[in-house]
Amino acid sequence: VKRVVECVPNFSEGRRPEIIAQIVHMVEETADVKVLDTSSDPAHNRTVLTFIGSPKGVADAAFAAIAKAAELIDMDSHTGEHPRMGATDVLPFVPIAGVSMDDCVQIARQVGARVGEELGIPVYLYQEAATRPEWANLGALRPKSHQYEQKKADVGSDAKWDPDFGPHRVGKAGATAIGARPPLIAYNVYLTTDDVDIAERVARAIRHSSGGLAFVKARGFLVDGKAQVSMNLTDFRRTPIHRVVEMVRREAGRYGVSIERSELVGLIPQQALVDAAVWYLQLDDFDAQAVLENRI
Amino acid sequence: VKRVVECVPNFSEGRRPEIIAQIVHMVEETADVKVLDTSSDPAHNRTVLTFIGSPKGVADAAFAAIAKAAELIDMDSHTGEHPRMGATDVLPFVPIAGVSMDDCVQIARQVGARVGEELGIPVYLYQEAATRPEWANLGALRPKSHQYEQKKADVGSDAKWDPDFGPHRVGKAGATAIGARPPLIAYNVYLTTDDVDIAERVARAIRHSSGGLAFVKARGFLVDGKAQVSMNLTDFRRTPIHRVVEMVRREAGRYGVSIERSELVGLIPQQALVDAAVWYLQLDDFDAQAVLENRI
Repeated sequence: VKRVVECVPNFSEGRRPEIIAQIVHMVEETADVKVLDTSSDPAHNRTVLTFIGSPKGVADAAFAAIAKAAELIDMDSHTGEHPRMGATDVLPFVPIAGVSMDDCVQIARQVGARVGEELGIPVYLYQEAATRPEWANLGALRPKSHQYEQKKADVGSDAKWDPDFGPHRVGKAGATAIGARPPLIAYNVYLTTDDVDIAERVARAIRHSSGGLAFVKARGFLVDGKAQVSMNLTDFRRTPIHRVVEMVRREAGRYGVSIERSELVGLIPQQALVDAAVWYLQLDDFDAQAVLENRI
Repeated sequence: VKRVVECVPNFSEGRRPEIIAQIVHMVEETADVKVLDTSSDPAHNRTVLTFIGSPKGVADAAFAAIAKAAELIDMDSHTGEHPRMGATDVLPFVPIAGVSMDDCVQIARQVGARVGEELGIPVYLYQEAATRPEWANLGALRPKSHQYEQKKADVGSDAKWDPDFGPHRVGKAGATAIGARPPLIAYNVYLTTDDVDIAERVARAIRHSSGGLAFVKARGFLVDGKAQVSMNLTDFRRTPIHRVVEMVRREAGRYGVSIERSELVGLIPQQALVDAAVWYLQLDDFDAQAVLENRI
């Protein structure tokens, strides 16, 4: 199986295309890496870049992009609605195929150490790569109340904000959160009704925040005259897509409604589809080596 | 997407391991090819070899194996229960990933032409590669009543048996059927009963030969005290695995029985699993480009 890692850095620049293009170019010219998407938000003044590649390719590209962002973005002049603390604000590594979460944690640590030493940027390890339990949650590391300006004041004087790598001092490139997390699947289910209340009730039943499944975020919408349950599956290995859609089906059935169709927004790891097929087909002893393509 | 072709040649030698090993060795030493399985049957005096690889690798390996079999196997001294007409008896190319059936038909024609010209062996194109409608069915080309000995007598004198490539004369290597066919999936479903009659009734309901689905062969067995519906799916793109298992479920339900589990015997193309996931998840507008691994 080919080894594939995804990287989804967020940069604090969403208004000047020429700056964004120079950062993206650093990734594009790295070997064994492919850019899948670039999405800029001027109100947030922020760009989300998605690329995949070999473990080494992705690590090299991430470092090159962080270096270029530090060169081109001055956080002293950055404003935007989204909380932010650095030119490269947050950069997760995501295991896609043939690599484990531990592999991605190792990549996060290696890249973090390089960024700290060679670029002089304070680096915080977060989520699966966190060295402090409280930083498992990015929100605790970069709350609205402690963004770039507060970090600049407190890093070096308050040990609470000591970074994992790099100087205990925040410069114009700010600080960067580097971590590892599972892939995210954005998945919408359309119901056979135009009653958005039913979509909202289903969303409340299945999402974690209101008592539902551990790795599901969900909301109800009305889209093109159909009630839609819009979901983010934040860890498909622990809360698989088939379990989610069957729970949506059961909850909607309670109101006499069924599923018309569903859709992916963006990408899905192959493994999530294979897991669903194995579950529905009841292939209890399935082995990935039974897949022809995995044998070459 | 990586381009993968499977090849499943049958050789008329199933008793002398040293002969079989020399033929298999020709495949193993070809670039871009991997041997997945070798299965010999002494009663049939026949060996089935399964290998996969790039289109060029598989074509080169097939030719090399046919040449070696022609060198080592003398059909004048071959006996066995299974109908046979050549040292390499039948050799199908199977599209697995990133190649079409037409691609495999082209490979069959190219390899067939080389075998005819360079090795002087009469070659018949069969199944999807057939140039005569009656040879779409291998059984019509190699009936029990027209094996090696009859071909040797009739080829060259009866135009009915004119080959697609090679001389109109059968030598000690016999004649070879070269063709293209869809991948085969061997799939068993275990029912929640020990009543083999129910498995047999379900098998009769779903299989093509008794009025069921077009590309399904099925029989009922008792295995380890459980009724088992044992199936060969001969074209999963036209009769998909999810439709088969749901029909098994419905027919078994008629007798108050459900599905305990299922199993694959051997290999399955990734596409068959993805198709099942897309069907069950109702991903109506699914595009293979939504799969992360297909983007690199």
